[in-house]
Amino acid sequence: MAADVDTDLTWKMLFPVIVNLIMSFITYIVTVRLIPKLKDMFIKANLFGIDMSKTTSEKVPESLGVVTGCTFLITMFLFIPVPFGNSLFNGAFPHDEFVELIAALLSICCMLLLGFADDVLDLRWRHKLLLPTIASLPLLMVYYVNFNSTTIIVPKPLRELLGFSVDVGIFYYIYMGMLAVFCTNAINILAGVNGLEVGQSIVIALSIITFNVIELSGLLWKAHQFSLYFMLPYTATALALLKHNWYPSKVFVGDTFCYFSGMTFAVVGILGHFSKTSLLFFIPQIFNFLYSSPQLFHFIPCPRHRLPKFNSKTDRLEISTTNFVYSDLSFLGKLIVNVFRVFRLIQWQEKDGYVITNNFTLINLVLFYLGPLHEAKLTTILIAVQVICTCVAFVIRYPLASIFYDV
Amino acid sequence: MAADVDTDLTWKMLFPVIVNLIMSFITYIVTVRLIPKLKDMFIKANLFGIDMSKTTSEKVPESLGVVTGCTFLITMFLFIPVPFGNSLFNGAFPHDEFVELIAALLSICCMLLLGFADDVLDLRWRHKLLLPTIASLPLLMVYYVNFNSTTIIVPKPLRELLGFSVDVGIFYYIYMGMLAVFCTNAINILAGVNGLEVGQSIVIALSIITFNVIELSGLLWKAHQFSLYFMLPYTATALALLKHNWYPSKVFVGDTFCYFSGMTFAVVGILGHFSKTSLLFFIPQIFNFLYSSPQLFHFIPCPRHRLPKFNSKTDRLEISTTNFVYSDLSFLGKLIVNVFRVFRLIQWQEKDGYVITNNFTLINLVLFYLGPLHEAKLTTILIAVQVICTCVAFVIRYPLASIFYDV
Repeated sequence: MAADVDTDLTWKMLFPVIVNLIMSFITYIVTVRLIPKLKDMFIKANLFGIDMSKTTSEKVPESLGVVTGCTFLITMFLFIPVPFGNSLFNGAFPHDEFVELIAALLSICCMLLLGFADDVLDLRWRHKLLLPTIASLPLLMVYYVNFNSTTIIVPKPLRELLGFSVDVGIFYYIYMGMLAVFCTNAINILAGVNGLEVGQSIVIALSIITFNVIELSGLLWKAHQFSLYFMLPYTATALALLKHNWYPSKVFVGDTFCYFSGMTFAVVGILGHFSKTSLLFFIPQIFNFLYSSPQLFHFIPCPRHRLPKFNSKTDRLEISTTNFVYSDLSFLGKLIVNVFRVFRLIQWQEKDGYVITNNFTLINLVLFYLGPLHEAKLTTILIAVQVICTCVAFVIRYPLASIFYDV
Repeated sequence: MAADVDTDLTWKMLFPVIVNLIMSFITYIVTVRLIPKLKDMFIKANLFGIDMSKTTSEKVPESLGVVTGCTFLITMFLFIPVPFGNSLFNGAFPHDEFVELIAALLSICCMLLLGFADDVLDLRWRHKLLLPTIASLPLLMVYYVNFNSTTIIVPKPLRELLGFSVDVGIFYYIYMGMLAVFCTNAINILAGVNGLEVGQSIVIALSIITFNVIELSGLLWKAHQFSLYFMLPYTATALALLKHNWYPSKVFVGDTFCYFSGMTFAVVGILGHFSKTSLLFFIPQIFNFLYSSPQLFHFIPCPRHRLPKFNSKTDRLEISTTNFVYSDLSFLGKLIVNVFRVFRLIQWQEKDGYVITNNFTLINLVLFYLGPLHEAKLTTILIAVQVICTCVAFVIRYPLASIFYDV
């Protein structure tokens, strides 16, 4: 009998995931063929860019993320009935699980719309922060009615001070809302070389999938099964996009893709109850954001584009630079550049009273350490960095976490 | 005691509607101010059209429906918690009602995305039929798990033959899917003069609101309350748009608006269980579709545009025409033009062996009967037709239906 129950549970756990996997495979094949067919439609609609790191000035269609987003949504729509199996017919329908799925898709669909609107209309910065917050509202509402667990477990060393757990209440919701804003924008600012947006997103997705598969044998398997429903078709569509976006890019992915990806990661993190772990897979993005922030918040002058500079003679990318008069900087600006200089986080040159440094992006930092690189090699290295950071994340999540928590 | 229960019920019925009304009012004010601010953004993004019925060739921003769609969604997102009131805190949360709201928003959001994609990318006809079907899947799934009532009551005269009711099963779902496709496209093809798309949509929305308000005192008040949640903010955003889209149009609404509107009507019809009544408010659209179909299906030659022709000397719109050699028509084509000619549904002229008729649209038909008209007057007449048809719909729904059904 016990074996029967076990088999039943395993079947219930794996059956929808296997169906999802098969559907994802089909989605990959469809998407990979669909993208080149739609290219001209995008160029005709004035949605194209010129690749600044190439010698040719061909028109490359932009915002193809909207295509993968749509094939993802269609796959999910067709998949919706699968996880509910028998409960569709016997009356005991789990509305609470159903609404999680629908609300997650609503937030993702909303973000896809906003991303595409941003690509087409070129929205302002305040919209880019406001809109993901609004798009995450249905999600937070579902979290509220289904779980409303805003208690965080205190790490062991702090327990004498704070007790075993602390209920942070509304702050947990603010944190989740900010997670959605962070995820949607973090991928967008670590971008600019062929294949990087999609490449890093696939690494993050595969990291989440690995984590889900590990945890599928745990007590919270339902949450991780839920996450897999989204991550598998997401990865399939992203791989299809990478095939056309890899160096030399035949298509660009647009803000659409970055927003769509970020929201999908935020959704599974929040509704799968592993929002803190999912942040661990964003180490390069977090570093890049912190490293960029002196320029983003204008303590240091920020040129319109911070992409690396293409040298057509060597066919390599070199660091792009910003320059300023040291004494013109604010106190905070001076402090930051000095700290960065001491820790060798920026290239530092002085010329005619000007200071010349690289722009503060992870991409430029890699070029500063490794010298000029061919574009495909640069992307490969940045993706390798992402993979290494995922390994670090798993070390933090499993062996290290046991020091601070009872896992 | 009984009075207390009544007051409680009335309060439960009206409170969320009143909050919704206040929010809709604020949304109107915000939207009406937002639209002119965003105009340049659309023109810069190459989303503009030239008004062919004006002497000037100014660029008029196109697809502003995406703005009203977004303000509608934001209003709804903020409204979501309101109808659940106390059940948010006391644990007995009605997940089945919640999922209706979320799934409805998912279908609408999806259609808004597809409408905007169509405006930007100029999708093909097969997409226009396929995509609303897919966007309505979550809706049908919710209908299935919450109601799954596919039984239709047989009209009295047929009851001896078929019995009191018939379970049409899967065909009811096919009908609902087709309703979504019909609603999204029907508004789109009754279009082309300033203010008509929004004007007719507002009349339809107000008709649904009137119907909901009447039925709010009936047994199914919950379904009609649900419909009001959507219709009030929808009408608010549409009125804001009409203010800028009325003759002479400062903005165009785009396919985005037509798709968004159609899906919103389909959503409330399906989940509010009055899909047949809601179709009654589409009489001019149904007539226009049937009247257009000989050209849409190419039994009669169909020029690229069928808009009325602008006469700059008289500042009036005249019928636009198509011409063909009678003997070239197929059997069905000949049959149709003859029937239309006998019933005086088309203008008929013969010249050099060619037959010249007006294009088969309701707009041209009005011009054929009333002669050339000023654009604003033409729109007003077409909207008046829509209002008259709504009155007919109410006669059919209430006094007439009692002959065929026990109401």
